[in-house]
Amino acid sequence: MTEQPTSPLSRRRLLGVGAGAAVAGAVAGVGGAYAATHASADPATAGGGADQASSDDMVPFRGEHQSGIITPAQDRMHFVALDVVTQDRAALAAMLKAWTRAAERMTAGAEAAPGGVVGGGPYRAPEDTGEAYDLDASDLTITIGYGPSLFDDRFGLADRKPDALRDLPGFVGDDLDPARSGGDLCIQACANDPQVAVHAVRNLVRMGFGVVSVRWSQLGFGRTSSTTRNQVTPRNMFGFKDGTNNLKAEDGDALAEHVWVQPADVPGGSAWMAGGSYLVARRIRMHIEIWDRTPLQEQQDIIGRDKGEGAPLGQKGEFDTLDFATKGADGKPAIPVDAHVALAHESRLNGIRILRRGYNFTDGSDGVGHLDAGLFFIGFMRDAHQQFVPMQRALAAKDGLNEYIEHTGSAVFACPPGLGAEDYWGQALFS
Amino acid sequence: MTEQPTSPLSRRRLLGVGAGAAVAGAVAGVGGAYAATHASADPATAGGGADQASSDDMVPFRGEHQSGIITPAQDRMHFVALDVVTQDRAALAAMLKAWTRAAERMTAGAEAAPGGVVGGGPYRAPEDTGEAYDLDASDLTITIGYGPSLFDDRFGLADRKPDALRDLPGFVGDDLDPARSGGDLCIQACANDPQVAVHAVRNLVRMGFGVVSVRWSQLGFGRTSSTTRNQVTPRNMFGFKDGTNNLKAEDGDALAEHVWVQPADVPGGSAWMAGGSYLVARRIRMHIEIWDRTPLQEQQDIIGRDKGEGAPLGQKGEFDTLDFATKGADGKPAIPVDAHVALAHESRLNGIRILRRGYNFTDGSDGVGHLDAGLFFIGFMRDAHQQFVPMQRALAAKDGLNEYIEHTGSAVFACPPGLGAEDYWGQALFS
Repeated sequence: MTEQPTSPLSRRRLLGVGAGAAVAGAVAGVGGAYAATHASADPATAGGGADQASSDDMVPFRGEHQSGIITPAQDRMHFVALDVVTQDRAALAAMLKAWTRAAERMTAGAEAAPGGVVGGGPYRAPEDTGEAYDLDASDLTITIGYGPSLFDDRFGLADRKPDALRDLPGFVGDDLDPARSGGDLCIQACANDPQVAVHAVRNLVRMGFGVVSVRWSQLGFGRTSSTTRNQVTPRNMFGFKDGTNNLKAEDGDALAEHVWVQPADVPGGSAWMAGGSYLVARRIRMHIEIWDRTPLQEQQDIIGRDKGEGAPLGQKGEFDTLDFATKGADGKPAIPVDAHVALAHESRLNGIRILRRGYNFTDGSDGVGHLDAGLFFIGFMRDAHQQFVPMQRALAAKDGLNEYIEHTGSAVFACPPGLGAEDYWGQALFS
Repeated sequence: MTEQPTSPLSRRRLLGVGAGAAVAGAVAGVGGAYAATHASADPATAGGGADQASSDDMVPFRGEHQSGIITPAQDRMHFVALDVVTQDRAALAAMLKAWTRAAERMTAGAEAAPGGVVGGGPYRAPEDTGEAYDLDASDLTITIGYGPSLFDDRFGLADRKPDALRDLPGFVGDDLDPARSGGDLCIQACANDPQVAVHAVRNLVRMGFGVVSVRWSQLGFGRTSSTTRNQVTPRNMFGFKDGTNNLKAEDGDALAEHVWVQPADVPGGSAWMAGGSYLVARRIRMHIEIWDRTPLQEQQDIIGRDKGEGAPLGQKGEFDTLDFATKGADGKPAIPVDAHVALAHESRLNGIRILRRGYNFTDGSDGVGHLDAGLFFIGFMRDAHQQFVPMQRALAAKDGLNEYIEHTGSAVFACPPGLGAEDYWGQALFS
């Protein structure tokens, strides 16, 4: 970092703004400087209670791992997959470096670039598009990922490709739309204000003009998983609590085993990926109209939990251990052997677990009288082919939910590790 | 009402829940009863701090006018247009009556029907889809409207059609998609939690199975207008404050003149519409990528306000009066004569004003590398043909914004007045 804060508190007092930056630990100096820049360009907000710099809703941008993975799941998401439209390796690397600066600024509640909305003067296009000008950081995280296609022959990255970064195989029942699948790059922007998430994606796309082009994009309005123990478990569009048994940020050893790529996984040219994680995205259309006409017991048997509490069938509380031996009054297992929670459980998958971080979506209507609603599944894992693929194979073969869902989009991305104080995206990849 | 509260406070104490209901004025008794029903079906939430009945985030459902018009604009919206798919007048009327009960319950933070998520027993489909089970009322409003096509020869309503309820004419530059336009009915659900808004629409659609079918649907993630004086003016996807000069809930006389249909407007068979308002919906795609490359001064000249503060050009503060006589240093008007705020100003339109209540949207990507983003314009007014049509004609002819926007959807609906204590939707129309 170019400057060191003496302490978060003194820095806060010094600037008169930047409380959010101050509590953000590693990013304090940088975030505070950005906040000060922003404030000086906009005196009206410098003292305001709603100023982005006066809240503690900021997630550190830099660290061992990227934020947006084990960060407590925010309520809203904008996810975008991009294609690189240039053949110019240097232009791509430069854009990633510029994105890093912009992403760090925006996660600190500042404008995308120092000129901001109005600081660049009347005769230039603003350096920030402005729709989040009055909004605070809103726990924004911006997470980047690289798709398998980025490592083709265009940019000389073939020898940097991790073995595990391969397109997913097809699964029984897939109905994938190529226009909602794949991509050279992805950006996952999560925030508690959707306008902040959209603003982040839009400004990065704007900065990438001539280098990248939007391939597909997905908004999610409600998180479907908790990623820390103190979050209330949310509900998906089937009305069930989702993510009760998810991996959580507190599960340090399990995260190392199931989420973070270990050095031994990525020898040689792919060593840049150690500390990263693979992101699997699946757009799952839910046929909610059919589901909504299904009796409660059948819904619960398909899921394996009760709908009110979210308790495993045969148990009382949401967090009671899944017990596949418990029998119901009829002598059969209380949780049907092919229930969703059984098929996806580690005990049936040689111990496989993943970190889920998906969102509910509704994308208008489908043209035949129904809402186009569902779950945008996002899972983070150490190796998609060792974890997501066997899990999805089991589900695709037997899950009773398949009568009600359809996978309409699919992608896998390598999310590199977090950034040190002076690092930028693409640095390790292009060096 | 079937029961009268002795007073809001005692009712609150009596029930131990229902604080939201208690503060909601006219709906207190009904809302409280619903909350109690919900609580008894779900003991776990009855004492919880996040219980829908323990907050004051409830908007009264009944009253002189429908809620969702001058109600302080909530942050999120789900709007749906529906076609009636039956020829059965009685089935349509029955659905509207059932919708009334469900809408009143949901705006009070309760489940869509008394059986709720789990109260109907294991062998029936749940009466509520469940995804909002743990969420509070979130200021939900549900506003209904009737399209011109509802008054064709199918349901015997031709003589009930208000003269003003006619499809809008075409405008220069329109690029309307029939799949995003029109509809026999509409539901506007607004809330501060998008999952609550989506839940409301989804449950009404579910209840209407066999009677109505979704024609189109639009989610909005950020309000673009204030409708009360104490709301901060939000920003649209062009990064400008939007709605500064909007009509506000406090403008009683102006609302009577510009928003609420007066008895003299609707003689004879259309008298049911007195106290209602016409809703104009326009899906406005914004070509944000082009806008984002436009210099700041050009953006400001097109809008007529500065981008940072939102002040009229040549003035200092956002709420300074628009002054078209003020000249800049070059001797020309500070606000260009064809600026958006000038063209849309009442002084240029024979005093015409409307109440705007639109939302920002981003609907994925457009297939050619851009985000499909824009503004879902919603305006409420006394007569769309006397107000929106001349305003839009002026804008379509001269507005510099036309280079950056495209109207891709259009609809007009007659939103009937609010409901008295025992009334239900369609009652006055079908009687």
